[in-house]
Amino acid sequence: MRTKKYVYFFGSGAAEGNKEMKSVLGGKGAHLAEMTNLGIPVPAGFTISAEVCKYFYDNGKQYPVGLGKQVEKNLKELEKTTGKKFGDPKNPLLVSVRSGAAVSMPGMMDTILNLGLNEKVIAGMEKTTGNARFVWDSYRRFIQMFCNVVENMEHEKFEHVINEVKAERGIKEDTEMKAEDWREVVAGYKKIYRSEKGKDFPEDAKEQLQKAIDAVFGSWQNPRANIYRQLNKIDEKKVFGTAVNVQSMVFGNMGDDCGTGVAFTRNPSTGEKVPYGEYLMNAQGEDVVAGIRTPKHLDSLKEDNEAVYKQLLGVFEMLEKHYKDMQDVEFTIENGKLFVLQTRSGKRTAAAMVKVAGDMVKEGLIDEKTALQRVEADKLDQLLHPTLDQAAKKNFRLIAKGLPASPGAAVGKVVFSAEEAVEKKERGEKVILVRQETSPEDLAGMNAAQGILTARGGMTSHAAVVARGMGKCCVSGAEGVVVMEAAKVFRSGEVEVGEGDIITLDGSTGEVFLGSIPTVAPNLSGDFGQIMKWADEYRKLGVRTNADTPKDAKTAREFGAQGIGLCRTEHMFFAEDRIFAVRQMIVSETLEQRQAALKKIFPMQKNDFKQLFEIMRGLPVKIRLLDPPLHEFLPKEKADIQALAKEIGMTEERLEEIVEGLHEFNPMMGHRGCRLGVTFPEIFEMQVRAIMTAVCELKKEQNYEVVPEIMIPLVGEVEELRWLKGKLVPVIEATMKEFGVKLQYELGTMIEIPRAAVTADEIAAEADFFSFGTNDLTQMTYGFSRDDAGKFIKDYLAQKILKEDPFRSVDQKGVGKLMEMAVELGRKTKKHLHVGICGEQGGDPDTVKFCHRIGLDYVSCSPYRVPIAKLAAAQAAIEEA
Amino acid sequence: MRTKKYVYFFGSGAAEGNKEMKSVLGGKGAHLAEMTNLGIPVPAGFTISAEVCKYFYDNGKQYPVGLGKQVEKNLKELEKTTGKKFGDPKNPLLVSVRSGAAVSMPGMMDTILNLGLNEKVIAGMEKTTGNARFVWDSYRRFIQMFCNVVENMEHEKFEHVINEVKAERGIKEDTEMKAEDWREVVAGYKKIYRSEKGKDFPEDAKEQLQKAIDAVFGSWQNPRANIYRQLNKIDEKKVFGTAVNVQSMVFGNMGDDCGTGVAFTRNPSTGEKVPYGEYLMNAQGEDVVAGIRTPKHLDSLKEDNEAVYKQLLGVFEMLEKHYKDMQDVEFTIENGKLFVLQTRSGKRTAAAMVKVAGDMVKEGLIDEKTALQRVEADKLDQLLHPTLDQAAKKNFRLIAKGLPASPGAAVGKVVFSAEEAVEKKERGEKVILVRQETSPEDLAGMNAAQGILTARGGMTSHAAVVARGMGKCCVSGAEGVVVMEAAKVFRSGEVEVGEGDIITLDGSTGEVFLGSIPTVAPNLSGDFGQIMKWADEYRKLGVRTNADTPKDAKTAREFGAQGIGLCRTEHMFFAEDRIFAVRQMIVSETLEQRQAALKKIFPMQKNDFKQLFEIMRGLPVKIRLLDPPLHEFLPKEKADIQALAKEIGMTEERLEEIVEGLHEFNPMMGHRGCRLGVTFPEIFEMQVRAIMTAVCELKKEQNYEVVPEIMIPLVGEVEELRWLKGKLVPVIEATMKEFGVKLQYELGTMIEIPRAAVTADEIAAEADFFSFGTNDLTQMTYGFSRDDAGKFIKDYLAQKILKEDPFRSVDQKGVGKLMEMAVELGRKTKKHLHVGICGEQGGDPDTVKFCHRIGLDYVSCSPYRVPIAKLAAAQAAIEEA
Repeated sequence: MRTKKYVYFFGSGAAEGNKEMKSVLGGKGAHLAEMTNLGIPVPAGFTISAEVCKYFYDNGKQYPVGLGKQVEKNLKELEKTTGKKFGDPKNPLLVSVRSGAAVSMPGMMDTILNLGLNEKVIAGMEKTTGNARFVWDSYRRFIQMFCNVVENMEHEKFEHVINEVKAERGIKEDTEMKAEDWREVVAGYKKIYRSEKGKDFPEDAKEQLQKAIDAVFGSWQNPRANIYRQLNKIDEKKVFGTAVNVQSMVFGNMGDDCGTGVAFTRNPSTGEKVPYGEYLMNAQGEDVVAGIRTPKHLDSLKEDNEAVYKQLLGVFEMLEKHYKDMQDVEFTIENGKLFVLQTRSGKRTAAAMVKVAGDMVKEGLIDEKTALQRVEADKLDQLLHPTLDQAAKKNFRLIAKGLPASPGAAVGKVVFSAEEAVEKKERGEKVILVRQETSPEDLAGMNAAQGILTARGGMTSHAAVVARGMGKCCVSGAEGVVVMEAAKVFRSGEVEVGEGDIITLDGSTGEVFLGSIPTVAPNLSGDFGQIMKWADEYRKLGVRTNADTPKDAKTAREFGAQGIGLCRTEHMFFAEDRIFAVRQMIVSETLEQRQAALKKIFPMQKNDFKQLFEIMRGLPVKIRLLDPPLHEFLPKEKADIQALAKEIGMTEERLEEIVEGLHEFNPMMGHRGCRLGVTFPEIFEMQVRAIMTAVCELKKEQNYEVVPEIMIPLVGEVEELRWLKGKLVPVIEATMKEFGVKLQYELGTMIEIPRAAVTADEIAAEADFFSFGTNDLTQMTYGFSRDDAGKFIKDYLAQKILKEDPFRSVDQKGVGKLMEMAVELGRKTKKHLHVGICGEQGGDPDTVKFCHRIGLDYVSCSPYRVPIAKLAAAQAAIEEA
Repeated sequence: MRTKKYVYFFGSGAAEGNKEMKSVLGGKGAHLAEMTNLGIPVPAGFTISAEVCKYFYDNGKQYPVGLGKQVEKNLKELEKTTGKKFGDPKNPLLVSVRSGAAVSMPGMMDTILNLGLNEKVIAGMEKTTGNARFVWDSYRRFIQMFCNVVENMEHEKFEHVINEVKAERGIKEDTEMKAEDWREVVAGYKKIYRSEKGKDFPEDAKEQLQKAIDAVFGSWQNPRANIYRQLNKIDEKKVFGTAVNVQSMVFGNMGDDCGTGVAFTRNPSTGEKVPYGEYLMNAQGEDVVAGIRTPKHLDSLKEDNEAVYKQLLGVFEMLEKHYKDMQDVEFTIENGKLFVLQTRSGKRTAAAMVKVAGDMVKEGLIDEKTALQRVEADKLDQLLHPTLDQAAKKNFRLIAKGLPASPGAAVGKVVFSAEEAVEKKERGEKVILVRQETSPEDLAGMNAAQGILTARGGMTSHAAVVARGMGKCCVSGAEGVVVMEAAKVFRSGEVEVGEGDIITLDGSTGEVFLGSIPTVAPNLSGDFGQIMKWADEYRKLGVRTNADTPKDAKTAREFGAQGIGLCRTEHMFFAEDRIFAVRQMIVSETLEQRQAALKKIFPMQKNDFKQLFEIMRGLPVKIRLLDPPLHEFLPKEKADIQALAKEIGMTEERLEEIVEGLHEFNPMMGHRGCRLGVTFPEIFEMQVRAIMTAVCELKKEQNYEVVPEIMIPLVGEVEELRWLKGKLVPVIEATMKEFGVKLQYELGTMIEIPRAAVTADEIAAEADFFSFGTNDLTQMTYGFSRDDAGKFIKDYLAQKILKEDPFRSVDQKGVGKLMEMAVELGRKTKKHLHVGICGEQGGDPDTVKFCHRIGLDYVSCSPYRVPIAKLAAAQAAIEEA
């Protein structure tokens, strides 16, 4: 019987494995084999198969017969290939030992370097290298790593030895340590080993190797690895075991013809096709990143060693052609010879992501579909807003950190009220509006400000939602910040910031800085447009926008929105010229009073709708009837109440009683949405009349036919919808009759109450369409008030009780399950029911993909997220195919 | 071909139909036939089958061939039986015509009386009766009914004629009208008929009959009947058509040997087996109920006509034996001859319901199962609380009406604060606490009061829930009431009630009266106990109680609760001696401060639990860890804040900041339940330690072993539960270790967040049990805040958008669907998972039955609803079998 092959060699331009063999060699091993096969100079070595690991656990921690011999054979081959010998003082082979499973799995044993060192080898190397300090330092590092990861000995004990030696000699930094100092450290280490293990530290290189291999296999089942697999749902039935990689060491710090560096095959910041990297001669890998010596730019390598430089550029090209992506490469030059230690896909900015993807299609490296999948949809946001100059940022004082509620950067003078914001803006000043939290009354101020900072509220608080809609930078829920609005000052830790002080917000990170940091304008280059064009070709899901104002609608159209998925009519109520009539309407004590007030609002609403219809010409517009609790519109301050009372001829006491009567304990679950429509049908009737009048006028004046989509919010029971239709359809018919026209319209509902999802089959019978209001649906499904959840949601994320903020990305397991149920039940009643989503999460890539999977017709999101949603939709379609 | 039989005769002790033929004869017709067959003297008549109605609509409103002849034949038979002739002036046959479908269906044509009258008959009858006024009054009534229900003419027009005649003659009341006045009215009626219909009012009796029959069949499809069927989900495919009943008229007002009355076969108030009724000689049915003449007690009939009296008693016995229930009988005596016009199951009080059911089992009329189903579970409540003396009630002024939040009656002096309530109570006064709404701070005051009246809040508002738990009378959400707490006065309409004024509350109707109405103490007679015994024998569902205090627990045990299903630990926090420590715990700024405060609370909690365990000895006790938002415990008034600040040595400003920081926009969906446990694990740890210490001490001191059921509230995601178990299980183990004992315990969760229901399979993996918190589940599933929903839920019920208040009875279609899903998913993971319900609805009979059907193990409800739940559970088990 022939023994099974357990060990795979790589070196000298040929490897027994390749990148397809990840399940056997692990990711790292397959990678090393692949590079070797490409002819890239990889330090030779061999990989012990992950199948050994499986055998090991299946057979009571025994190795398969024949493994020892195969390892022996490969070690020989390695000595032959490198011309070095294991344990040979004159020309020692040193190796690294690393774990490597088929999927990346932190928690397992990572790395042991310099394995093969012992007292004899040390002595030999001191002579050959002439660098005793390097040799002893390497040795103590090896012992430390070995004891820590193989023998599970406490790290602190070893640190203690170093500290003692330092104290003894009055040394402060590791860099001051000399060869003899490290030698003493080694002696100390060995003493600890002896006292703990009852024997000497292994001198025999092969014994060291065997122990290291045992440790790698053993680490597969250590608690950290188990927890990692559990958390990341890695099924041990599908992926079992790690491989062990044994690779010959190369040193970049053995002399001036040695060096080490890190490079990207293209510029990771801009995406330009120019290699970008840094290196140091006569240095170790960690020296390049440690910042002790300033590394040189990759270009200088041409002067230091032109041959290696050219070879490296060749390697870059080869790797890019092979991996078809920009690579992040680690390399070492040992005695003038280039070795590539690692290559992986390079991290890059959004701009680079878009440019590299576009360029690679042009270069014929990848196709459009691959390009689309290469761009992380979420990161596109960075390209759509001005951003902080990252380089400049570090010179400023970070005073607080909140939630990255709406991306972009904003610099301005602090103001504490909406009025102040408007006033200063009119005087040409740039301001940041700082509030405990914002309310609809602050809208004008938010609009006037460069950015908004709030101490309270989550990612979907009023401030966050409105700011994202406006494409305005916002940091919300900055918990450490105490805002004293009356005193016009806010405190964060020891810092006090007053009105007029300048601060800078980074809406992409949630950071707040003192002072004015320069910003960089967004640059929607041709590559961005190209990606969007491809996305439109591949996606199946429609992308609409949430827009309440002509400005939002225009922006969204520029970004390519295919209509309005949600127009929140209440946002139209706050303009200064109409809030008075709205308030009058709300505090009316009789139907007559209310209707008189509604009569004033009617022409304004009608014109709002007409404007939106014209901007979105040719595209559908979905209008939600009044949703928020009425008290949101009422004045809160004593002075405002007095003014209102005077204007409408009501006693102040009576008005206060009315305002007090409108107070609710849990307004989010109170008298709002269609419930307002049931108690005050005249409000909804006015709105519907305004919509239909706008439609009829456009037909009459321009022969332009809009199909308005009228949406009833907060329905939880089909009878609500049926009852309201009984009130509204006659208004629609009457309006059309008045104009002598007959036009199409749709009347549908939000699905945002859990009960609506659960009874969607009944509701579908009365609805022309569904639109998921996932903000409310998430609130109700979790029982989380989005305005209050900030208090505990941070703890939940920190403790990993929640993996993601459900107000940011739809919770697919809970909220998503209800959505699926609603789609299924709804289409059981109406096969072709049109279903969309208009919650804030509609612009989140994961949510977009989820919506594609459960068969929605479109997503609707804030204008600035339209491109993101389009890209994610395209990716979903490609993934599905 | 023989014609199908369409008409069924009844009279002279024999009928062609019987009670099984409801689908052919309708309920009324089958009933009349049955009584006739029993030998009960029913006025003769015939029923035209409902199949004719079906034929009528299936064939373009044509009647089947042969129907005319059958009607003709039966009319002849009727003339023969009665010895009267249709249209004969000397001895006229007069009939009533009524609709009657298989199921009761308001909205169809009801009744036409006196059909057969015309000018000629009138003239004859004037002579034979010698009572011209009676004859003309009967005639004008017939015309009016005929025009209204057959010809669809407006009622007002006829009223107008009467009013004109009255005005002309200076008459105010109908009773003053003489024969000639009615004659003039008849002339006026006929004039209207002529001018509207273009022909004379039909004189021919047969024409009148045909038109009446047409009208009955036509009314089957009138809009009101259609809407009724739609609302009540009556499927026309299963139940189609109405029958027509033509019955000879009998008159109780034709002389002194005539009379009419209404009687119950037993006393409907007490249930005693003594017939109870009222009658009037020489009177019409409506005279008995109109209150113009005082009717006589049934006993007097013995003197007025002993033969008829005895015959009537015989009829009662026969009917009871036949229908096996107490009957409500209408009878008429015409010229000394008894006729029974109707019999139906008699409405009765709760006491009578229980007594009659018990007696009938003893009498061998019904079996235990039937007895159990005869008692309306919901009505038992009346028996458990003192009630208002109904007779006395009408002498008092009704000043307001709210929701019947907690049954019973309460009389006392009005107070406007909890403090005042306690103070007055201590002085021996009985008080009613009147508040805008109550909060946990009012607990002591509520306890001291006889009853509670609030202007705000629904059936499950704080006031309502707490009052029901205490078995205390409460009227909540009395919307017309304006409470001015500071001014110590409340206003309702024009009435102002000040402190010290006496009012009476009827918690079973929601009525509020001025003054002191006498009350009647509850009498839990032997029949009640008997019914409960039977219920225990038949039911499968367990019945526990929601109890937080020793008093509640004792009451519930007396009512037969099988353990505690919900002990809300927060209610233990409000006692005066501990609220201080609780507040200290809440405002703590460091973990150390908080732990110091918790240390003070610990012994109190431990003793609470120990007491409950002892009272419930032998029964399970489920304890919910702290649930409400912390700010509920904090003082709200400036003075209280000052006092607290002083006591705990904190500046007032800082304390105010902390209190302000705890404010939430939607506390119901805020930082509460297990979310508190995650952010402040030390609170839950203290509670669990207190529970386990109590358990361990009982084991050590008395060798009594409790299996505590520890319940985590508000879980929506399994990780919350897993994380908390990670904190709490070590505390449990440590406590047992400290006492050196090893005991059983259960750790489970509420299912009250929609997401918990949807992900119940995951949650079950970590839970020993589920308990449905249907208050919160209803809030979240509907998106209804129970504290605010009062504002619109009334409109919803009035408009029939909701058929029932979902906080009163579980919404089976929505909330119930989630519950079913949770049971199914939970038991998929753990086959024998123990599942209960502890929401307020747990004491609602429909909910109890629903819980039985979806396989719950038990329901838990407030102490006073335990008997109700038991009975409903027995009924569910019987219905299922």
